[in-house]
Amino acid sequence: MSSERIKMEGPLCPVPLPHHEQVVIGHGSGGRMTARLIESLFYPAFQNEALSQGDDAAVLDMPGEGRIALSTDGHIVTPLFFPGGDIGSLAVCGTVNDLAMVGAVPQWLTASFILEEGLPMDTLKQVVASMTKSAAEAGVQIVAGDTKVAERGKVDGVYISTAGVGRVPAGRMIGGAHAQPGDVVLISGTLGDHGIAVLAARGQLAFDVELDSDIAPLNGMVEGMLAVSVNVHVLRDPTRGGLATTLNEIAVQSGVTIRLVEDALPVRAPVQAACEMLGFDPLYVANEGKLTAIVAPQDAGKVLAAMRATPYGKEACQIGVVEAGHPQVLMQTAIGGTRVVDVLAGEMLPRIC
Amino acid sequence: MSSERIKMEGPLCPVPLPHHEQVVIGHGSGGRMTARLIESLFYPAFQNEALSQGDDAAVLDMPGEGRIALSTDGHIVTPLFFPGGDIGSLAVCGTVNDLAMVGAVPQWLTASFILEEGLPMDTLKQVVASMTKSAAEAGVQIVAGDTKVAERGKVDGVYISTAGVGRVPAGRMIGGAHAQPGDVVLISGTLGDHGIAVLAARGQLAFDVELDSDIAPLNGMVEGMLAVSVNVHVLRDPTRGGLATTLNEIAVQSGVTIRLVEDALPVRAPVQAACEMLGFDPLYVANEGKLTAIVAPQDAGKVLAAMRATPYGKEACQIGVVEAGHPQVLMQTAIGGTRVVDVLAGEMLPRIC
Repeated sequence: MSSERIKMEGPLCPVPLPHHEQVVIGHGSGGRMTARLIESLFYPAFQNEALSQGDDAAVLDMPGEGRIALSTDGHIVTPLFFPGGDIGSLAVCGTVNDLAMVGAVPQWLTASFILEEGLPMDTLKQVVASMTKSAAEAGVQIVAGDTKVAERGKVDGVYISTAGVGRVPAGRMIGGAHAQPGDVVLISGTLGDHGIAVLAARGQLAFDVELDSDIAPLNGMVEGMLAVSVNVHVLRDPTRGGLATTLNEIAVQSGVTIRLVEDALPVRAPVQAACEMLGFDPLYVANEGKLTAIVAPQDAGKVLAAMRATPYGKEACQIGVVEAGHPQVLMQTAIGGTRVVDVLAGEMLPRIC
Repeated sequence: MSSERIKMEGPLCPVPLPHHEQVVIGHGSGGRMTARLIESLFYPAFQNEALSQGDDAAVLDMPGEGRIALSTDGHIVTPLFFPGGDIGSLAVCGTVNDLAMVGAVPQWLTASFILEEGLPMDTLKQVVASMTKSAAEAGVQIVAGDTKVAERGKVDGVYISTAGVGRVPAGRMIGGAHAQPGDVVLISGTLGDHGIAVLAARGQLAFDVELDSDIAPLNGMVEGMLAVSVNVHVLRDPTRGGLATTLNEIAVQSGVTIRLVEDALPVRAPVQAACEMLGFDPLYVANEGKLTAIVAPQDAGKVLAAMRATPYGKEACQIGVVEAGHPQVLMQTAIGGTRVVDVLAGEMLPRIC
């Protein structure tokens, strides 16, 4: 080749393409328009070397031998934006939190976007900006992605499936099967904020509710808790199905009875009001920034203190105890009785996450 | 607790639930119906300890220090089933192949299902069985998953986003930026089989085509190639956008000219016929079981032999060379001229993967 030729190391789309205000089918083609979308939107937003390498998979240094944690979550929430969050923050925090709940330090995420033809490009930008913000707060990088486009009506704007990888430091053994009789049950804050906030954003409540979703990355709180105690046995974020379903899962995995104290359950006034109006129980309403922890009794005080010292755990409290017995969740009611708390049977609030 | 109490270690759904012939909204609730779906379908199909632990994330032993590869792909192909494959085999092979293309040994996958209310349960079972079969062939485990359900019309039956983790053995440096002038360009087999097979399955061709999609896991072939050569510089599977787009990406990443020989491009007769009828070029039609390799010239022969020794590489051949120069793809045509081969500009075949 002649040496005068200028060697271009630039992007795949040096030629300006028509500007698109909306997602079109060609953005999912795998060709020039997909490249343009990736280079103009995803690379600048999620900037990291692994992603912008542009190969079929990100290659990442895994320092030290050991265990990794792997998780995935699909997100189809409607509406896409609601007080306190959106599908972007949800997609990042959901997977970050799943990793943190097994004691992993979340490191890398992948994001698979399924877009609807006609989605305003500004909407996508807003979702991506929100993902960037949540990822920065959680200290994770979005290192791989994929974009597909379906025809109008086949998606509600955007669906996002995220997957995540975290490192599990040596010695951490946290899982649903490790609850022991005598342990105490903690919750990091109020119940049902996410579910009711999304419901309100849909305009499905007959009254106004001043309420934000609790969406938050919880890995910082988990590190704080694990720094003060080696006796955190179970961590789980009570998302779909709510705290009732989550605790039932743990009761089955560990083969124990979990006894809750109704008066101890923290619920915000607007959530309580909405639930009473709708016939819901806040125990079954989804949370996206809360965790329940099951901890050896001697460490409960310092773990609670560690939770309360973090931004998303200020209202942490004890809500129950673990007992030997049939795998079930019981509730000591405010009027002194005991009732069984079952798992969510049908569907209460579809499309909540 | 009294010792007579029987301690149940069983699943979360000991009580029989109404049998569902179709997916209903409650299957995405996170409650009892979701648990039932997971326990009756996903656990038995994908059986492995990490998945059936039932925690928020799978915890996995990563043997030895080193690098990992991470990738994701969303799948919205229509129709769900077509000759040679279905959305299940596509979802597994797509991610397995992305990992293999950076020289990684694929190990674990995650699967995020977005289901349409009303999807026949038998259809889902068939898709899951296909995923199981492809995962077994590729030697990977599906260790984490998620299921969401959207209302009728908001999904075409099922969308699947997979993510995958692989181990990158020490010393492997394979990526789009490593093509060097003098290297040869190989292809593992015929072009365009997947795209045309899916198109035919949609009934969008005016004539009958006897053609299977080429969907296949390529990690076995890659291991065979890397066992005989340390000079495999680039591997990539030409999916959406076809071989033309893939080679343009590599030309830009490496800053080289890639020169193809038209007569050398392997295309099956029915693909050629369909493309002529439709005005398509097989160079732009998607493949799902092919790879292109860019290899140092002294190793081309043994790498080709290694490819041909595997089930999915029997028709492997050389199709071009890498030259110093402007980042572009040129084609030496059958009639002796040279033309520029550009990337796919718009969208030719939507919903192909």
